[in-house]
Amino acid sequence: MVEANKRAKRRAAAAEGLTIQLVRGNGRPLFAQVHEQVVDRIAAGDLSPGMRLPPVRALATTLGINQMTVARAYKDLADAGFVEGRAGGGTYVRTPSGVTSRKVRTPREHVENRPLLSERLFDLSHAPGVIAFTANFPVIDKACIDEFKACLEAVMADISSCFHYDPPTGRPQLRLQIAAYLREHGVVTPPEDVVVTSGAQQAIDLVIRSLVPPGAPVIIERPAYYGVINALRTAQARILEVPLEPDGMDIAALETHLSRHRPRLIYTNPTFQNPTGTTASAEKRRALLALARKYGVAILEDDHNSDLRFAGAPVPSIRALAEPDDPVFYVRSFGKVFLPGVRLGYVVTPARARRALLAIKAHSDLHTNALMQEATALFLKRGIYKRPFERMRKSYGLMQKKLIRKLSEGMPAGTLIGRPEGGLSLWLNLPEGTEVSELYYRAVRRGVAFISGEVFYASHVNPRTLRVSFGSMTDELLAEGVSRLCSVAADLMRPRGAPSAIFT
Amino acid sequence: MVEANKRAKRRAAAAEGLTIQLVRGNGRPLFAQVHEQVVDRIAAGDLSPGMRLPPVRALATTLGINQMTVARAYKDLADAGFVEGRAGGGTYVRTPSGVTSRKVRTPREHVENRPLLSERLFDLSHAPGVIAFTANFPVIDKACIDEFKACLEAVMADISSCFHYDPPTGRPQLRLQIAAYLREHGVVTPPEDVVVTSGAQQAIDLVIRSLVPPGAPVIIERPAYYGVINALRTAQARILEVPLEPDGMDIAALETHLSRHRPRLIYTNPTFQNPTGTTASAEKRRALLALARKYGVAILEDDHNSDLRFAGAPVPSIRALAEPDDPVFYVRSFGKVFLPGVRLGYVVTPARARRALLAIKAHSDLHTNALMQEATALFLKRGIYKRPFERMRKSYGLMQKKLIRKLSEGMPAGTLIGRPEGGLSLWLNLPEGTEVSELYYRAVRRGVAFISGEVFYASHVNPRTLRVSFGSMTDELLAEGVSRLCSVAADLMRPRGAPSAIFT
Repeated sequence: MVEANKRAKRRAAAAEGLTIQLVRGNGRPLFAQVHEQVVDRIAAGDLSPGMRLPPVRALATTLGINQMTVARAYKDLADAGFVEGRAGGGTYVRTPSGVTSRKVRTPREHVENRPLLSERLFDLSHAPGVIAFTANFPVIDKACIDEFKACLEAVMADISSCFHYDPPTGRPQLRLQIAAYLREHGVVTPPEDVVVTSGAQQAIDLVIRSLVPPGAPVIIERPAYYGVINALRTAQARILEVPLEPDGMDIAALETHLSRHRPRLIYTNPTFQNPTGTTASAEKRRALLALARKYGVAILEDDHNSDLRFAGAPVPSIRALAEPDDPVFYVRSFGKVFLPGVRLGYVVTPARARRALLAIKAHSDLHTNALMQEATALFLKRGIYKRPFERMRKSYGLMQKKLIRKLSEGMPAGTLIGRPEGGLSLWLNLPEGTEVSELYYRAVRRGVAFISGEVFYASHVNPRTLRVSFGSMTDELLAEGVSRLCSVAADLMRPRGAPSAIFT
Repeated sequence: MVEANKRAKRRAAAAEGLTIQLVRGNGRPLFAQVHEQVVDRIAAGDLSPGMRLPPVRALATTLGINQMTVARAYKDLADAGFVEGRAGGGTYVRTPSGVTSRKVRTPREHVENRPLLSERLFDLSHAPGVIAFTANFPVIDKACIDEFKACLEAVMADISSCFHYDPPTGRPQLRLQIAAYLREHGVVTPPEDVVVTSGAQQAIDLVIRSLVPPGAPVIIERPAYYGVINALRTAQARILEVPLEPDGMDIAALETHLSRHRPRLIYTNPTFQNPTGTTASAEKRRALLALARKYGVAILEDDHNSDLRFAGAPVPSIRALAEPDDPVFYVRSFGKVFLPGVRLGYVVTPARARRALLAIKAHSDLHTNALMQEATALFLKRGIYKRPFERMRKSYGLMQKKLIRKLSEGMPAGTLIGRPEGGLSLWLNLPEGTEVSELYYRAVRRGVAFISGEVFYASHVNPRTLRVSFGSMTDELLAEGVSRLCSVAADLMRPRGAPSAIFT
């Protein structure tokens, strides 16, 4: 007890002696410099959870700055979750998001202690001063928001019809509108084969739960969306990865897996693949379908953002190429296009698999929120979103061009940069000899974030990959963010031990 | 082909010859009599899916009634899903809800072809003319609806903050309000241990998925809520049932299971248990907790409607009796009390199990709709619901008394009727020698529905049990519904083959 007290005091003393070096006139406000350097010390481990920061007044005196400046920095740090105030006074370094000080002991080994990516991304993209290239979903157009509000208000006039329990399949009006929307996009389905889900993630999870018993092999692309990798791990599937080529899966490798392992399911994201941006050719889609038929395996087609095409000609979805009886589950959502966060997705099911899927939907969460379904049905029906959506698509197209140009100019020689025809992400491969993990931590300290490629691999991570997403960007932030990223990357290219231009 | 055509014609002819007998002046409108008799024929199999009903004009002429009357009956039948109009004209008997004519072949045997209870209940409770004792959730008070609308509108003023992706844990404001609400109800928890879910069903499913690997034993009460039985079956758990006594689980039987099978989890619904209405005594709750500690097993406490107490003194929840470190998962929702259908529930997790649960939440549906969370947080914070809720509780308390009295008077001698201190359901046991399955079909034909007890048993169904819920009742419907139910039950008591008073 006495020993623990001593240790606590030593820590506090160390924190009290926190040295911060401010540079005036370098374009960074002083509060931001204080903020960044505290984050820097936390990242480096100099400040560990539970340590107390110097009192506002003391630090202000030491640095010769206004107390308001220090207070602002502390407030931002607290808002971003790095520090917290405590009853009785004092500002302390927080235990990282969600990790409690009590010992974590979880029933499933594979999820134990792993930080949740969604929490990390949320924290990063909300940390003040950090320019986050993490959002693979758009900033919704003001006109779209207003229109959705109008739809909600219209629906709320008869809100009592939403206050009971629904069948799991989804509201008839919404399924009708989805079927009409899909018909415009080349997919013909009766509304009864549309199952409304709580976002595309649930659609993916339901299909996996309905098809994949524990230990069963499932094929995914390599790399692939981390959400499907996580859902497959939770289902205890055996994950088989098929390399992606510039025009889609390596078909020979796919057939080898199919013939050897007899998997239950092939997960594919053929258009503007997450994370690589790759679009599979119509030929490869047909080949995939032919192989699925030959080996009697189901296809889970994730078509999350084919709406966001900036160039080139649309390629028909696998569902559109298939016969109604083919076992293709076609997943789409509203979140990646015009209603992020609304948690409404859907899956077009082969008729014979519909009831099994609905049973699992019912056992998972009974049904999806009715009010949101009705509002979205009206939103689709009125179609007023179409013009603002076109505006949005154009501006993101221009932004993508700009981002590619700036990264091409500024990233170290040998960096490979994807050039997808749509979507809100770019996939980068750093030159040999570099590690993204190192880049990542330096970048966050320098106020720029991206997604390290490791989360997109189920095995044998390629440590030189990263995803740069521009969904939440403005032109101004983009220029500054790329400049930060490029300078950190340039620094990383230097031989180890050489002096760094950034950390002097 | 010719043969098939002939068969189709024969069917059509049979349907054309549909005989309907109307009684004027018996209090039932003519359109309702037409409706009921068609439903009757469908239930009896005289009218099978695909058969055509007589044209409106023809039937009206035959019966000597107005065409509008027949048209109204057909429309109601179509709305209820019994029949459908077809392109080219004609009204046809529908394939039952969701079952397509294509052969159903599903990957998991245990869900194959089983009709979804939620769909059946929805169809029943929306079938015109049917008085459905199926709703275990209340009709929301008009003042509550208006207040929730006001909260939604307030939140929509800053709706753009809801259009992005959230961490899986739920909105901070809502977790704060839930913690405050629980504190008022004797459960003390830090808001960070509250995980917001898409309804209580998802909370149950997530706890099961995080704790129960396939094949692992899990203990439930006998009988138990079908939602937990279904979620356990989907997880491929081995279900062990412990008989319920009037004051809670049979503790000796529980310990036998615990010592023999070393289960992972005990699911219990200690207050106004669904379906029996039983409330476990504080002693039994303590005994359960002590056994859980002794055998190192987690408790999933489903506290779905302890708010709806009409008599007696509240008993502390197991979570309230436990230490913070005890592995008690405490599940509750808004749907069973004042916001049915809103699909918002929550689970208070033991701190050390929180991350595993959040990971599965993230892999299931990322997070729950943000707008609904914010509106509900405001709804709780303002607390305006409290007065209408009290009103509602009182009126349901009176209704429960009335229902018990009427059933006691009207049901056949030997029927056991539960007398719970709260909740919106009564549990009935019919006398020896009767079968609820028979009662069920006759009752539906007579325009009254309930839930057959079989869905609440994981094995060895007690075929004489039924749940009568009055969540969607009015006083008027209740009297008529009980009278129909009692007369059908009386009929069932007669020796087989004896003439029936109802079907003459």
